[in-house]
Amino acid sequence: MARTIVAIDWGTSALRAALLGEDGRVIEERQSQRGILNVPAGAFAEVLQITCNDWLLDPDVLCLISGMAGSRQGWREAPYCPCPAAFDDLVARLVWVETDFTRARIAIVPGMSCERDGVPDVMRGEEVQIFGALSLLGDAQQGRFVLPGTHSKWARIESGRLLAFTTFMTGEFYALLRTYSILSRTMPADEPPLDTEAFTRGVAQAHTSGSILSSAFSNRTLALFQRMREEALSSYLSGLLIGEELRAQQVDPADGMVTVIGSQALTLRYELALLSLGIPARRVGGEATWRGLWQVAQRMEPIE
Amino acid sequence: MARTIVAIDWGTSALRAALLGEDGRVIEERQSQRGILNVPAGAFAEVLQITCNDWLLDPDVLCLISGMAGSRQGWREAPYCPCPAAFDDLVARLVWVETDFTRARIAIVPGMSCERDGVPDVMRGEEVQIFGALSLLGDAQQGRFVLPGTHSKWARIESGRLLAFTTFMTGEFYALLRTYSILSRTMPADEPPLDTEAFTRGVAQAHTSGSILSSAFSNRTLALFQRMREEALSSYLSGLLIGEELRAQQVDPADGMVTVIGSQALTLRYELALLSLGIPARRVGGEATWRGLWQVAQRMEPIE
Repeated sequence: MARTIVAIDWGTSALRAALLGEDGRVIEERQSQRGILNVPAGAFAEVLQITCNDWLLDPDVLCLISGMAGSRQGWREAPYCPCPAAFDDLVARLVWVETDFTRARIAIVPGMSCERDGVPDVMRGEEVQIFGALSLLGDAQQGRFVLPGTHSKWARIESGRLLAFTTFMTGEFYALLRTYSILSRTMPADEPPLDTEAFTRGVAQAHTSGSILSSAFSNRTLALFQRMREEALSSYLSGLLIGEELRAQQVDPADGMVTVIGSQALTLRYELALLSLGIPARRVGGEATWRGLWQVAQRMEPIE
Repeated sequence: MARTIVAIDWGTSALRAALLGEDGRVIEERQSQRGILNVPAGAFAEVLQITCNDWLLDPDVLCLISGMAGSRQGWREAPYCPCPAAFDDLVARLVWVETDFTRARIAIVPGMSCERDGVPDVMRGEEVQIFGALSLLGDAQQGRFVLPGTHSKWARIESGRLLAFTTFMTGEFYALLRTYSILSRTMPADEPPLDTEAFTRGVAQAHTSGSILSSAFSNRTLALFQRMREEALSSYLSGLLIGEELRAQQVDPADGMVTVIGSQALTLRYELALLSLGIPARRVGGEATWRGLWQVAQRMEPIE
């Protein structure tokens, strides 16, 4: 189904858009702060029009949207696709939306859900990045993936199917501790550059600790006994949190490569943490989203 | 050394005082909001005078102070006593302070420190409560103790010595998540009464989860899928956090009784959590501090 694609990654706090050529190549990219929390009620079509109207003049264009735009608070709820699932299961569950300003077809890609120890877990947007990364890695059929962020996601792929995933509130915990906790009192208000030694010390510490509830307190005591410079404390805390994620995921060097998906600013610390534990890591950038959405288009029935 | 004791538990946010008779019995108790964070620089003696002047008119009275008053931000720094240590080691390290308003002798009881996996841990005040609880339990020589709070402490006593302890930032994490995190959005603003079913479900969930960084997210997804009432979510979160503490401490029914020290309001959830995992628990109340400070006086050399 070769055609021009308008690919939209519509998240909570931002909207990213790309015009993709028939071969999936990015022709142009745009960004907006109109994440779903910044879209007035009922104004999703309007925001899309403002952002990409010129791309959507051609009625043969296909517009595919992933991310929180498919949540209950978004444009149109796209029910979660349950794990385990292959890429084609997402394609089969596209939710179509209609607008006045364009005759181009517009679909929302659903997120995914899974059940673990009797409780649900969810993601929206990351599933497209993961399948996109598989494609970018030469149609890989298996692997372990981590997508850092406010709520980072770990996912496992086998035989081309997303078997299960886990959300960690790592980025949000960091912000809470950095901003509001007793630990913030001994840290400089401005974020100093990453201290890689303190960071990897935090990763190692988390690996021998039983819980971030106790290891986080070492951030205070190391300051109290002047055994760590104040400028290094936030890097150490970051290491404790990301190290806790790796401990909980029981990442083992014997399990092979971990693929970290995201912009370099987000993935750097995860790559550092993995390498410090002897676990090979590679990165796939934000282009994973565009490849994922382009692949959705390739897998759609010709009638679409 | 039978004599009248003025016992002071001088913490971060409050000051508790008790007048103890020669037999250790509490004659009178007082409270003040003049925790060390609310004491103007250099005004510790003045606050003590305002709170307890009438008790300190007799020069034979002994005043013993435990808690954060012995920290660097307190009245006079009393260096930490390192673990393992017996009660007499604390007595040997009292730090004396002098004031103009009374001829009664005044001493600060030091806190304790320990080293675990290459990082220090500290407490101030809890050590007196633990040794006081041992005395109240018929001079017990061993046991496992937990002191709930903003920063809860777990301690192990063997042969009358405090071997090691661990701080968990459980109360602070709860407040951060309850107030500032994405989880707070689905919870009623006012704290509803404890939902014991949701609470023990949280405890059990934490026990099978690898980390609070991921288990906390189930608080959101259970709300999202309407599988838990909004009024129950904060109780569930509390269970997740306290359960994480028990998981990290690897509390096992085979290890016998755990003693929870503190006021009933603080200890209730810990007793519930322990019992829900089949671990026998008993409570010792705030009187542990008074018994501990009275025991310090009994163990002092007659010359003091």
